[in-house]
Amino acid sequence: MTAAHGLDVLISEVGPRDGLQSIPTILPLELKKEWVTREAAAGVREIEVGSFVPASVLPQLADTEALVRHALAIPGLTVAVLVPNRRGAAAAIAAGAHKITLPVSASETHGLRNVRRTHDQMIAEATAIAALIAEAPPGRRPAFEGGLSTAFGCTIEGAIPDRTLLTLAERLMAAGCDEVGLSDTSGYADPAQVRRLVRLVRGVVGEANLTGLHLHNTRGLGLANALAGLEEGITTLDASLGGLGGCPFAPGASGNIVTEDLAFMLAAMGLNTGVDLEALLDVRRRLETWLPGEAVYGFTAAAGLPLGFKASRQVAA
Amino acid sequence: MTAAHGLDVLISEVGPRDGLQSIPTILPLELKKEWVTREAAAGVREIEVGSFVPASVLPQLADTEALVRHALAIPGLTVAVLVPNRRGAAAAIAAGAHKITLPVSASETHGLRNVRRTHDQMIAEATAIAALIAEAPPGRRPAFEGGLSTAFGCTIEGAIPDRTLLTLAERLMAAGCDEVGLSDTSGYADPAQVRRLVRLVRGVVGEANLTGLHLHNTRGLGLANALAGLEEGITTLDASLGGLGGCPFAPGASGNIVTEDLAFMLAAMGLNTGVDLEALLDVRRRLETWLPGEAVYGFTAAAGLPLGFKASRQVAA
Repeated sequence: MTAAHGLDVLISEVGPRDGLQSIPTILPLELKKEWVTREAAAGVREIEVGSFVPASVLPQLADTEALVRHALAIPGLTVAVLVPNRRGAAAAIAAGAHKITLPVSASETHGLRNVRRTHDQMIAEATAIAALIAEAPPGRRPAFEGGLSTAFGCTIEGAIPDRTLLTLAERLMAAGCDEVGLSDTSGYADPAQVRRLVRLVRGVVGEANLTGLHLHNTRGLGLANALAGLEEGITTLDASLGGLGGCPFAPGASGNIVTEDLAFMLAAMGLNTGVDLEALLDVRRRLETWLPGEAVYGFTAAAGLPLGFKASRQVAA
Repeated sequence: MTAAHGLDVLISEVGPRDGLQSIPTILPLELKKEWVTREAAAGVREIEVGSFVPASVLPQLADTEALVRHALAIPGLTVAVLVPNRRGAAAAIAAGAHKITLPVSASETHGLRNVRRTHDQMIAEATAIAALIAEAPPGRRPAFEGGLSTAFGCTIEGAIPDRTLLTLAERLMAAGCDEVGLSDTSGYADPAQVRRLVRLVRGVVGEANLTGLHLHNTRGLGLANALAGLEEGITTLDASLGGLGGCPFAPGASGNIVTEDLAFMLAAMGLNTGVDLEALLDVRRRLETWLPGEAVYGFTAAAGLPLGFKASRQVAA
């Protein structure tokens, strides 16, 4: 299968949303714009720029609408956002986002703590969002993903029964999602489980309707899990520049997989991501200066690219 | 294929050699003994305890002979050592090591800088070592591995031509090695390359004679590369507790893959390594106290095991 944009793999940058929401620093809008502009110029074709949540909940993302409008002016960039409910979706549609993701926790306990909604209530939100999209003018109808968070296990519930996950995936598609994605919110996934759950969920929603994974590197397995996903035909992988937004435990522990490391792995494997690695590493260096005192990590930035690493592997599509 | 000891995968701990040789601190012999004893008790079945090199070159490993003798008393443990030449091999055989590895750099430039020997000279060493082993009394003949270092690329030469690697592998076997291993000395490997080179080298030496990989995590791909190796039927993976011995560039950059993270990945995948993860993490915590000021890293130790992680997956064979 080929990813969007004619790439082998689409790297979806989630740092401006998932990264920035996880740190106390509020990055000024102008620097967010520069981040998105520069990373798109480095060849990243999809960026999740924010979340339509109340500013009282996530003041770090209060300027999401302005950032969406900025990002929409960048040619060839898919502008993605997160929405917690139908109200957020309405704002995202009004702003013109290309893609909206409704995170729905496979662990109902997690969902109740996180957004105070049961599975039934989340399905009702998904149904309402699908209706909003259908009512939007043609050309302003975003792609709608149901993001199955805690799909690989939950820090409160532990293992999630397959039946729970599959039922939820099926209901999200029936509610009107265009596709579902699997998120390793807790960093519990392993490569064998990635393969197994991708196959199982695809058995319910169809192969074309599960193309993306959102993986964390909490226990160091992020890129191994990404590799397992690739081998199952996954074509979209979320990642965060500098692994931003994930040191929940200790230095060295982490959340999102690191965009630069993922991009290096894919390029080294000869896969076309459209990303210019040197340019991407330059954006990362800038991000470090924009967020002094915040932990960023990643290995490729520290080690540099291998001697003689072929630029031809990194050519933009 | 099954690893030694009836395990699915044999984790070969190289920290007491590769880790300790890379840091300035000299760990006292008594603590080295405790490390080896405790890690073996945690279920690790092979430990590379040192290197038979002159103390003037690596004072950190000057007590290798004593550590070998200590380790030999541990039931069920394969005691491995590195030797740079026939003189080191003679000492290793005299000490009673079960396994000796002669590192031979695929990059001749790297080999000349490292041990001042050409490929021809290293093959002569291998031949001499095989003769020493043949002359040893039965029961005192160690397994002999030719360790192909810089197999995935070299920081001086860059990419290594396949022909160079394959010729060297073939010559090492002809010289009398029991097997060859591939080492990603520079941290240049990617999963596609791991698959490709394992297949190519096995085409020359035979499937049974390439069972182990020594991988680094320099660019974050260590466990993804390990997964690729597993999928090619590799059954022995080197790793270092706490990733010790590998911050050549910067904090976060690293050398060896982390034993705990590897052990967690394999256990999560349902593979039997014989390792008790909780006990292994306990040894790591002790190592940190033994080496204050030295950088150790790794993700699983920071994050802890997932909630409800099944002990049954970790049962010793």
